[in-house]
Amino acid sequence: MRYKLIISYDGTAYRGWQVQPDSITVQEQIHSAIREFSQQDIIIHGSGRTDAGVHAIAQVAHFDLDTRASMHSLHKALNALLPADIRIMQIEEVSDDFHARRSAISKEYRYFFWNDSWMPPHLRLYRTHRRYELNVDRMREAAQHLVGKHDFEAFSSKRLPEGENTVRTISALELSKDGSEICLRAVGNGFLYKMVRSIAGYLVRVGEGHIGPESAPDLLAGKVRTPDIPTARPEGLFLWSVDY
Amino acid sequence: MRYKLIISYDGTAYRGWQVQPDSITVQEQIHSAIREFSQQDIIIHGSGRTDAGVHAIAQVAHFDLDTRASMHSLHKALNALLPADIRIMQIEEVSDDFHARRSAISKEYRYFFWNDSWMPPHLRLYRTHRRYELNVDRMREAAQHLVGKHDFEAFSSKRLPEGENTVRTISALELSKDGSEICLRAVGNGFLYKMVRSIAGYLVRVGEGHIGPESAPDLLAGKVRTPDIPTARPEGLFLWSVDY
Repeated sequence: MRYKLIISYDGTAYRGWQVQPDSITVQEQIHSAIREFSQQDIIIHGSGRTDAGVHAIAQVAHFDLDTRASMHSLHKALNALLPADIRIMQIEEVSDDFHARRSAISKEYRYFFWNDSWMPPHLRLYRTHRRYELNVDRMREAAQHLVGKHDFEAFSSKRLPEGENTVRTISALELSKDGSEICLRAVGNGFLYKMVRSIAGYLVRVGEGHIGPESAPDLLAGKVRTPDIPTARPEGLFLWSVDY
Repeated sequence: MRYKLIISYDGTAYRGWQVQPDSITVQEQIHSAIREFSQQDIIIHGSGRTDAGVHAIAQVAHFDLDTRASMHSLHKALNALLPADIRIMQIEEVSDDFHARRSAISKEYRYFFWNDSWMPPHLRLYRTHRRYELNVDRMREAAQHLVGKHDFEAFSSKRLPEGENTVRTISALELSKDGSEICLRAVGNGFLYKMVRSIAGYLVRVGEGHIGPESAPDLLAGKVRTPDIPTARPEGLFLWSVDY
């Protein structure tokens, strides 16, 4: 039987989603819980990685398991075995051709800034603090240039595998402001490594007036990172949803 | 010179506001920062206590200090000396007759519930999770009985000092719902020890259908705690503002 999980996590304590040697990761914690429950060597497949310190409202993953446990008991048991900073929000049976990564049609990320002199401390692990006033209209103008199908090599990590296709389609890149909070909502068919944080970092440069919003097309065409494309901090970023 | 501070803190790591032996408290942390800055044995006076694990958006305190430092340097220095879970949001000079506790006219608290099967983990230290559906209309009806001037002895801690006047005036007790989040907003001229958490605990009993909303006047008149007035958990509570 194939199960689909919707997982929410606080990424603060983890070295990201994906299992790696000598690090504690979200995927590894879920492996441990499922293996303890099932006594089987189950592998779970996520919709994609998230970096160290990045959070998820609704990461999606799947795994195969033969069990006589009801969905309800499986759900409760897994949450009881998981640490408090990882919760299975939903579990459902899916057909065997569902694949959390390959079946995904689009993903939504949200990046949250706190734009004021000081930030209330209960937000410190979930918002990126920017003290100087961000001009949201300028950020919106720059964001519009990034919407659509583009080669996003300039907005991805230098550690990209050789020969990787760096063309992606962003269907929405929207900014909203609510008091001191600014939210960047990014929807697309896929994102390169560190792409959302690179876009967020660039939009801060625009919003603080270091570079004009009309710079986006040239930066895309240049295909290299520049000092105007810094990687924004991980704590403001949430993987918000994955659509199938 | 008398200074007024507006302080925001994440109460998770603290044994509440007030200095006490063998415990780490918010007031003690601010004492340490001011004493390190000034090399003087300064005492700060808060608007009132908050319990262990309770947060503040805008606690108010005052202290007296002679310094040639500018307000801006004093503000930055104190935040640099404080741990990340306590921030001075504002600092201003006030007249010598300002007193953070005695001059306060009213206080506002907000208590946040997350009312759904599971709670996203990044909220776990700042929302109280209630799994079963709360009937907000019933809670509103019960809350209306508590608004006004009443003897709130039944809604305060058993550890109240002998002979304490337990009459208080609640000017607003409002419930709002936004998705899975329910917020209880309580405004009054003063609150007894654990009074907001007791009201929140009672309203949960009403919202879950264990007791009717018309029970409030009898409970007030009874002046004793009953099993229908449990103390709600601290993590959902924020001291929101103090008015002068």
